[in-house]
Amino acid sequence: MKILIVNPNTTASMTRKIGDAARSVAAGGTEVVAVNPADGPVSIEGPYDEALCLPGLLTEVKRGVADGADAVVVACFDDPGIDACRALVPVPVIGICHAAMQVAVQLADSFSIVTTLGRSVPVLEGLAVRYGMAQRCRRVRAAEVPVLALEEPGSAAAQQVRAEVRAAVAEDSAEAVLLGCAGMADLAAALSEEFAIPVIDGVAAAVKLAEAVAGLGIATSKAGLYAPPVPKAYSGTLSAFAPRTP
Amino acid sequence: MKILIVNPNTTASMTRKIGDAARSVAAGGTEVVAVNPADGPVSIEGPYDEALCLPGLLTEVKRGVADGADAVVVACFDDPGIDACRALVPVPVIGICHAAMQVAVQLADSFSIVTTLGRSVPVLEGLAVRYGMAQRCRRVRAAEVPVLALEEPGSAAAQQVRAEVRAAVAEDSAEAVLLGCAGMADLAAALSEEFAIPVIDGVAAAVKLAEAVAGLGIATSKAGLYAPPVPKAYSGTLSAFAPRTP
Amino acid sequence: MKILIVNPNTTASMTRKIGDAARSVAAGGTEVVAVNPADGPVSIEGPYDEALCLPGLLTEVKRGVADGADAVVVACFDDPGIDACRALVPVPVIGICHAAMQVAVQLADSFSIVTTLGRSVPVLEGLAVRYGMAQRCRRVRAAEVPVLALEEPGSAAAQQVRAEVRAAVAEDSAEAVLLGCAGMADLAAALSEEFAIPVIDGVAAAVKLAEAVAGLGIATSKAGLYAPPVPKAYSGTLSAFAPRTP
Amino acid sequence: MKILIVNPNTTASMTRKIGDAARSVAAGGTEVVAVNPADGPVSIEGPYDEALCLPGLLTEVKRGVADGADAVVVACFDDPGIDACRALVPVPVIGICHAAMQVAVQLADSFSIVTTLGRSVPVLEGLAVRYGMAQRCRRVRAAEVPVLALEEPGSAAAQQVRAEVRAAVAEDSAEAVLLGCAGMADLAAALSEEFAIPVIDGVAAAVKLAEAVAGLGIATSKAGLYAPPVPKAYSGTLSAFAPRTP
Amino acid sequence: MKILIVNPNTTASMTRKIGDAARSVAAGGTEVVAVNPADGPVSIEGPYDEALCLPGLLTEVKRGVADGADAVVVACFDDPGIDACRALVPVPVIGICHAAMQVAVQLADSFSIVTTLGRSVPVLEGLAVRYGMAQRCRRVRAAEVPVLALEEPGSAAAQQVRAEVRAAVAEDSAEAVLLGCAGMADLAAALSEEFAIPVIDGVAAAVKLAEAVAGLGIATSKAGLYAPPVPKAYSGTLSAFAPRTP
Amino acid sequence: MKILIVNPNTTASMTRKIGDAARSVAAGGTEVVAVNPADGPVSIEGPYDEALCLPGLLTEVKRGVADGADAVVVACFDDPGIDACRALVPVPVIGICHAAMQVAVQLADSFSIVTTLGRSVPVLEGLAVRYGMAQRCRRVRAAEVPVLALEEPGSAAAQQVRAEVRAAVAEDSAEAVLLGCAGMADLAAALSEEFAIPVIDGVAAAVKLAEAVAGLGIATSKAGLYAPPVPKAYSGTLSAFAPRTP
Repeated sequence: MKILIVNPNTTASMTRKIGDAARSVAAGGTEVVAVNPADGPVSIEGPYDEALCLPGLLTEVKRGVADGADAVVVACFDDPGIDACRALVPVPVIGICHAAMQVAVQLADSFSIVTTLGRSVPVLEGLAVRYGMAQRCRRVRAAEVPVLALEEPGSAAAQQVRAEVRAAVAEDSAEAVLLGCAGMADLAAALSEEFAIPVIDGVAAAVKLAEAVAGLGIATSKAGLYAPPVPKAYSGTLSAFAPRTP
Repeated sequence: MKILIVNPNTTASMTRKIGDAARSVAAGGTEVVAVNPADGPVSIEGPYDEALCLPGLLTEVKRGVADGADAVVVACFDDPGIDACRALVPVPVIGICHAAMQVAVQLADSFSIVTTLGRSVPVLEGLAVRYGMAQRCRRVRAAEVPVLALEEPGSAAAQQVRAEVRAAVAEDSAEAVLLGCAGMADLAAALSEEFAIPVIDGVAAAVKLAEAVAGLGIATSKAGLYAPPVPKAYSGTLSAFAPRTP
Repeated sequence: MKILIVNPNTTASMTRKIGDAARSVAAGGTEVVAVNPADGPVSIEGPYDEALCLPGLLTEVKRGVADGADAVVVACFDDPGIDACRALVPVPVIGICHAAMQVAVQLADSFSIVTTLGRSVPVLEGLAVRYGMAQRCRRVRAAEVPVLALEEPGSAAAQQVRAEVRAAVAEDSAEAVLLGCAGMADLAAALSEEFAIPVIDGVAAAVKLAEAVAGLGIATSKAGLYAPPVPKAYSGTLSAFAPRTP
Repeated sequence: MKILIVNPNTTASMTRKIGDAARSVAAGGTEVVAVNPADGPVSIEGPYDEALCLPGLLTEVKRGVADGADAVVVACFDDPGIDACRALVPVPVIGICHAAMQVAVQLADSFSIVTTLGRSVPVLEGLAVRYGMAQRCRRVRAAEVPVLALEEPGSAAAQQVRAEVRAAVAEDSAEAVLLGCAGMADLAAALSEEFAIPVIDGVAAAVKLAEAVAGLGIATSKAGLYAPPVPKAYSGTLSAFAPRTP
Repeated sequence: MKILIVNPNTTASMTRKIGDAARSVAAGGTEVVAVNPADGPVSIEGPYDEALCLPGLLTEVKRGVADGADAVVVACFDDPGIDACRALVPVPVIGICHAAMQVAVQLADSFSIVTTLGRSVPVLEGLAVRYGMAQRCRRVRAAEVPVLALEEPGSAAAQQVRAEVRAAVAEDSAEAVLLGCAGMADLAAALSEEFAIPVIDGVAAAVKLAEAVAGLGIATSKAGLYAPPVPKAYSGTLSAFAPRTP
Repeated sequence: MKILIVNPNTTASMTRKIGDAARSVAAGGTEVVAVNPADGPVSIEGPYDEALCLPGLLTEVKRGVADGADAVVVACFDDPGIDACRALVPVPVIGICHAAMQVAVQLADSFSIVTTLGRSVPVLEGLAVRYGMAQRCRRVRAAEVPVLALEEPGSAAAQQVRAEVRAAVAEDSAEAVLLGCAGMADLAAALSEEFAIPVIDGVAAAVKLAEAVAGLGIATSKAGLYAPPVPKAYSGTLSAFAPRTP
């Protein structure tokens, strides 16, 4: 099985970290291909960046599935563009926030999330509502670290994340904690051990869910929201994205 | 007051119809500027088109506000990119679906929606949940007419929309009906009269709400979700979109 | 356009303040008529006062619409009697709590409310549920000032309101704050500026919404909840309220 | 124990029927006093009538508790004025809609409601939301019979109610049916037997709940929403309603 | 009327306390029979104990109804096995958590719960969701006292419960407090008086509700979830539990 | 990896079918062990059977984990005893209803469920609420076939299931269908192909999720609801179930 992981920002060091996290949990027969777009924001922090990562994300998803991917993971915790990706390709598409939440509620009754910046808190609260997890999500906490600070050796970012995990346990009575940024993938194991509760990295959760869903041999439903794009013209610089008649 | 209306698809005839609908309800002192992007899909039908209208939409919003717009209306009933637009500019940004729902619940206890294609039904059901309108929305109905069929003189599209409005009254006991596509803006008045209930066009609703909110002189909150984009690099063909330090 | 604003308590000084707040945001062509009933409570603090303001409120609404009002604003943040008013008259009827919430979610993702007395907290929490705003409303806070203290020059009431607005920003991460009493209408602008987030007065919000909805030329739906009262006898001292055959 | 039942409309024949229904289920030691106001609508059909029954209702509640009632039942299925009554008096106040729903979910997993007119459907749907019963309430059905038709011997009203009960069983898979008008109190037993499911009359349910709650010897909480009315002046014809300092 | 109260754990001293609490509120003509199973856990703390109390509970319910009980109360605040009991017997079956919540919302707008151990907090939060009480339940608090500590004379358990009741009033603005364990039945009256709000014991609430519902003469609906068990074989040591053809 | 699948009823032919379905989707390195209890109901149809399958289920789970299982699947679509199992053992425990719903929302926006008997409809509706899937679940349909009819060669059961799947597509616009009984595991593939939408068998979904969650190497949280049972005595015939001090 071949799983395509798209980091929808353009920072290659983060893509490598995500790929490593993915491979560390992938099953024996799973090939992990981790890519990022050439075009778009270097990090995704809030809805403006999220909107503008989409052309690059869709380009990579289309190419990767054409190259034989059996499932796609979108490796940004805001789950950008999931519906568009599902409409574009027949194989399962998994967002890392949704995956982390689904795994969490198999292991714990409630969870808190630790994300990067305060502006992402309402984004993740909104996803919790959309995914039917509002009753399970105790609190979304911001460590107030920029995404790319997680890439800098020696930064205080990891310690700030740890402080919020500690607070989630102590103040929220959370039974599990989700790390709300793909760039935190390397922190989960140590935090899980230190706090003796599940600390869940979305990348790892999504890789395993992708293996699971693709392993069932069932394709994405094309009967409604995820029907293939209607063939039509696209104008100007985006004409290459125009959906073709199948 | 100057209101910028962005039709996020690239079909100029639809932009003209939207502009006409807007001007027909605008207050005396309101200037309406209706535009569409040069780049992107000719119509928006489902989440793939919705994702790829965003660069064009954001370009028009940025330019229009730089040119003095006091408020922005995004004229697609899927409300694409609203959060990104709100982060990008300080003036109020109004989506036509949200506006139509807000007006509806001031005039009626419940409503149904008539949209174009079946694939848009779950999109609008999702917006109803997000906007806290799930209890008020009786049913989302698809007339199964492509968006651009609404632009063709002599097509059966208007009759199909009318049939669904009739069904909403008879079967859903809806107290009001929302027309779920900006391309239906010219049908609202006649249907309102025929069925003796509010039949609400989102473009008109959004123009009046934009006047209302902008008239209060309060800007979009920059304290959380709508904080200005963090200054950073954007790679490749999207570098011109990179947020600048203010 | 003529907008009738009914302060449903009988304190004339408060009616004047409300009228002034309304006129300060009304459009050029809008005539604002602010009235209060002759009969009923001098202030509305809790459900008992709310019940007994209704005969006076309905009397004023009926008279004002007969005198040509194009829309009605009910200027008490508990939104008393809105459904009864909508059944009684064909023109739009707007409550200031609902209006403030609708404006808030066009400018911010979440809000807190600062009201007068603790007993009003559950009233406003209940309205948030009814209006589908429970997910958006972070917290309802009571400044613990009686309504009429807001009318006394030199009282500490304004400072207590300000302290709760500050707490809403600091503790609730609210992106906007609603002032939960028509008597706070004169405080909004200064608080908005001081705290650099939208601080929304319901009277102003409702006037602009009333202009918006009435400007669409659509009357209240008479197809269900807001059908005209069934003609029937009323006994005793209330016989003058008996609905007539149209 | 003495239970005051207030029929908030002014139709004495209906008050007698309600009193009979109450006495038929009351415990041995329970005295039932059924009254109606002298002033107000002859029937309550929609929010306008509901608003104007309140002065009469509050008058009767105050008098009845002063005369020694240990609990109060408000016998209109729209549950008008419950919060105001609870603030006014210390003894438990029970609405018949809330009571019927509470009894229903002790005997069945879901229920439908059969009410009088279509305009009451959204009222009862709203109460289901407020009472946390939205998931349990399959459907609210209108028999389209005026309230007072239930008082006319030989009218078809009872047959229309029966037809809707049958439909609730057949089409809604409802496990129980609530009769949504105090004037249907005499129909419950026969319908229960005919359809072999609980058919619940709100008056009977409320009498038994009133006995239960009053029997616990716990008064209404005065710590928040139901705090006694703040002492203040009432103007004009309503001055007799002014709350006094205790 | 004869009410069977089943304490689903096997601690006889607790059964006696529960029986005493029940008799102290029962009506004159009510006979209270309080029993506990011979087989099962000595206390119920968490879902494992809850699962294994069910055979004993069902045995007692079947026997008690065969012996003439008119209603059944299950006296554990986790409401274990209620649906199974309702399917097994025709008479009303009342859980003490559901009963306490129903009584609370007749006397107060919101409540908090004080339970024994932290592991029970999510159980009760889950019941609040299931019973439609999530909006009314401010907070579930754990006194961190084992169930059987409530049986030990001189233990600090009662003081720890009292401290949490105090916190519910001060920090949660709860208008009422529910005691979340049948073993706290003897504490309610004194706490109610001390804190001047309703402090509700579930056993007492359930006894009064059982009298109320049974007094209506309506049996549990057998039309859906509570249909009698399908006759079938049970294997091995549980064969005596096999449902018989009626 | 070793996955224990417990069919909580005692019908061995159904256990074999479940085991076959599990092995047909298990990964190369996964060992599937399918067992059923010796004691308990021969099929689970409604809450009474569900309660009495628990001792047998817990016995098998404890033994299977002692024998080295890395994850547990409970193969009854009512998800009986999941919380108790999670408290009892440290490895992940997956219910087939929850698993099927989680997989469904990765492949489709909405789904319907086809179950066996009408009495199971409210059970599954309740699980949809508990799992946050109420907005996604269009309808729960009963094929009205007893569980064991699915085991009889030549019965009409499969055709009745197929008829409801067809209705779910045609009437509910469901984008996917869940088969709501472990005994339907062998029907999913053919129905998926015939109706060209995902038709999901819970056993297969749960096996893949179990591989996924166990593959992450994270154990069930012991910080709250799933804390190990408190060591204590169990009386009488259930004494062997008494939790021991670890």
